[in-house]
Amino acid sequence: MRSLKNIFNSRSKDKGEFFTALTKILNFKPKTLKHYKTAFTHRSMNIKNSKGHIVNYERLEFLGDAMLSAVIAHYLYTEVPSGDEGYLTKMRSKVVSREHLNELGKDLGLIKLVKSKIPKGQFGDNIHGNLFEALVGAIYLDKGYAACEKFIENRIIGPYIDIEKLEGKVISYKSLLIEWCQKEKKHFDYNVYEDTGNSDVKHFSVKLSLDHKVVAKARATSKKKAEEKASKRAYFAFQKEISKATIL
Amino acid sequence: MRSLKNIFNSRSKDKGEFFTALTKILNFKPKTLKHYKTAFTHRSMNIKNSKGHIVNYERLEFLGDAMLSAVIAHYLYTEVPSGDEGYLTKMRSKVVSREHLNELGKDLGLIKLVKSKIPKGQFGDNIHGNLFEALVGAIYLDKGYAACEKFIENRIIGPYIDIEKLEGKVISYKSLLIEWCQKEKKHFDYNVYEDTGNSDVKHFSVKLSLDHKVVAKARATSKKKAEEKASKRAYFAFQKEISKATIL
Repeated sequence: MRSLKNIFNSRSKDKGEFFTALTKILNFKPKTLKHYKTAFTHRSMNIKNSKGHIVNYERLEFLGDAMLSAVIAHYLYTEVPSGDEGYLTKMRSKVVSREHLNELGKDLGLIKLVKSKIPKGQFGDNIHGNLFEALVGAIYLDKGYAACEKFIENRIIGPYIDIEKLEGKVISYKSLLIEWCQKEKKHFDYNVYEDTGNSDVKHFSVKLSLDHKVVAKARATSKKKAEEKASKRAYFAFQKEISKATIL
Repeated sequence: MRSLKNIFNSRSKDKGEFFTALTKILNFKPKTLKHYKTAFTHRSMNIKNSKGHIVNYERLEFLGDAMLSAVIAHYLYTEVPSGDEGYLTKMRSKVVSREHLNELGKDLGLIKLVKSKIPKGQFGDNIHGNLFEALVGAIYLDKGYAACEKFIENRIIGPYIDIEKLEGKVISYKSLLIEWCQKEKKHFDYNVYEDTGNSDVKHFSVKLSLDHKVVAKARATSKKKAEEKASKRAYFAFQKEISKATIL
């Protein structure tokens, strides 16, 4: 039975690579690496710790899921003071839906860091969301609730959560933006290109120009998602002008 | 439409009474009373705040439920390192079961503090658990996650959670204790008496004596629960002797 340490630190270079990749994902320096190593250890590695307990990311998924639910509950509670219990419950389940979590994990490229004896191509889509939950659990153990909350705010709430959109009031920021451009006679252009970088998963980047000036950039796992992300960014950058034009 | 302030603070004496009763339940001094006032406001009061949002404890139930789940998840994660994700999920659902939360809310006498237009006798059993969840939500808003965690540890984990018992390994501490007493030829006596105090709910107290010396006291909403609670306390006080006798 191999130990966690052996797997991630077989050479000091490996440790450095894991640390560097992780820091990039987290946007802060991890303190206790072992939690993150567990978060990226698949059950197929068949690892036990010194006390004989099985070590893989599945228990951290349980913990991360709970933290995610708590943070999103607080966010929605504060953000939607008019929403009753039923509304809040429904909205949270949309935010932490399997599909949404898989998308998040995929966008963060978490699968790159997994240690597994199963080839990565054989994993289903759920591995992305599972790794995301496990990562949240590891952050909680490493840095506590506040850091966990901050990570979720930066990584989910900021770029992904949009109450209006979750409520179905806004279907697509791209269409809102185009509508506004046509009304205001603005020229718009979505310049999309493949930008997979070091990721195992195909990625696309987009530069959105209004009147030949780049106003927003975004990157995601599909062309459509990247365009929507850039549109949302542009929408909020021009929100004042757009709502004025829409009301008038 | 009456405001929250009017209801709880119609006389300064009332504010004092609410504050005192609350501090006794919380075991710390609340900072922002309005959260707790919301936690004890039933929907039948039909209250809105200055922004027109409905104010009652139902939204806080949602928040408190999430915090409770997170804290218990972390507790079980740490406490049962051998338990897998399925085990942890199952154990948590036992801890935060409706029945368990109702018992907790009842034991804390939360219903005494409720402001409602419906007579308290007409509420079902779930109000106790709902109020407990709402109270946890209010603590989170007032004092943050760490204080919330501490409250849950003191109020639930300490007196109520017993992994062995939840796992069904220990059915009753009373029977374990009696077994030990008979083996060791110790005289035991459960002195139970009604002790409802200022509560709206009937309560019982018990003094448990071993060889005519009181070794544990407990109070609960039924004779059986009070006896079990006292037995558990005595069991842990004499744990060393008991396990020695049981093994030999």
